[in-house]
Amino acid sequence: MKKICTFIFIIVLMKISHAQKVEIKKETKPMNVAILIYEGIYMLDFTGPYEIFVDTYSKDGKPLFNAYTVAPGDTMIKAHSGLNVKADFSIKNAPQPDIFVIPGGDLSLLKNNEPLKKWLIETANKSQIVVSVCTGAFILSSAGLLDGMEATTWYGAIDKLQELTPKAKVVKDKRITDNGKIITTAGVSAGIDGALYIVSRLFGKETATATAKYIEYKGWE
Amino acid sequence: MKKICTFIFIIVLMKISHAQKVEIKKETKPMNVAILIYEGIYMLDFTGPYEIFVDTYSKDGKPLFNAYTVAPGDTMIKAHSGLNVKADFSIKNAPQPDIFVIPGGDLSLLKNNEPLKKWLIETANKSQIVVSVCTGAFILSSAGLLDGMEATTWYGAIDKLQELTPKAKVVKDKRITDNGKIITTAGVSAGIDGALYIVSRLFGKETATATAKYIEYKGWE
Repeated sequence: MKKICTFIFIIVLMKISHAQKVEIKKETKPMNVAILIYEGIYMLDFTGPYEIFVDTYSKDGKPLFNAYTVAPGDTMIKAHSGLNVKADFSIKNAPQPDIFVIPGGDLSLLKNNEPLKKWLIETANKSQIVVSVCTGAFILSSAGLLDGMEATTWYGAIDKLQELTPKAKVVKDKRITDNGKIITTAGVSAGIDGALYIVSRLFGKETATATAKYIEYKGWE
Repeated sequence: MKKICTFIFIIVLMKISHAQKVEIKKETKPMNVAILIYEGIYMLDFTGPYEIFVDTYSKDGKPLFNAYTVAPGDTMIKAHSGLNVKADFSIKNAPQPDIFVIPGGDLSLLKNNEPLKKWLIETANKSQIVVSVCTGAFILSSAGLLDGMEATTWYGAIDKLQELTPKAKVVKDKRITDNGKIITTAGVSAGIDGALYIVSRLFGKETATATAKYIEYKGWE
């Protein structure tokens, strides 16, 4: 009995100790975060930002984000790592997000898939923020969403992204580029920083720092 | 056609540019890495180490690890974040690992589950390395595997782990504790560092640094 109480105590402690350090910057219902997932996706590209959004709470312990996964067709997908994931929605029934996350892994995802391309462009147009992680920038590029933007991607693909996106300014010295609506991040783990950056922009740096502390992430300052 | 070639080129580049920076420290077949996953698991606790192991290659581009997920019973589980994952194996058919990863999320996982406890202890006994991430240390504790060890966990649960494990020395000033076979890490994202540490111990620091660079992880030095 004592052990059960201790376990419950720690779970409650994990919630409370986190919530205490978060200040409400905005009184609002949780923002919808749609995370596009697909066959061959880099696992950490999407689970990094996903973890940040679901671990971010208001001061009174309410979640600030409602994050969910969306697959192009069949909701059962296999990540590059081999992990089998079942998406919450397909593009046929996914709710419109406020924040739209495009992780990397399949650079030619939109090729020969007009319905997906159409959905992605329409969903991006109606989103407040669209963020690519790693080679997810190539998906934004092929949707024409990087034209006129400053963009970055995984360090080994910088030149190719520039070649394929002549109307974008592709940079290699930034972990995150912010064009207001369109945000891009560097490779794989940089998606964690990208999500923390978005939390910071929307709810203040203290909130992002509290989330970074909660998951004991050292890369965020 | 040009675009297809470019996409293939970048995928090949991602493999080659990574492999070039890795030195073979050991000529061996890939080491088995079993990652225990279960209902309520912290997503980044397991996807962080998982990504590190699958992204680590020998100089000639061969994977150094064969990572897979194992669930206690039903292989379809829901993480704390809401992510639905289908495990590769259950404890009834999982291959014996060389490295056994115990992520956090459910501190009372072994309670009232003798078959799981028995399997976990037997599997740990036959593993070369057993590593807990975050509150996964409580699972090792309840299996009696932390007795006599130096251990750490998520920063908010340090005192409770010590209380429940009087025969362990629980420390709060280390991101990783290494007792030879039993390794423990601090909270959530520290599992990435724990996996890089294991790669470094087994295959040398250059190999771990190459993997950290590949995923553009800033926390590792």
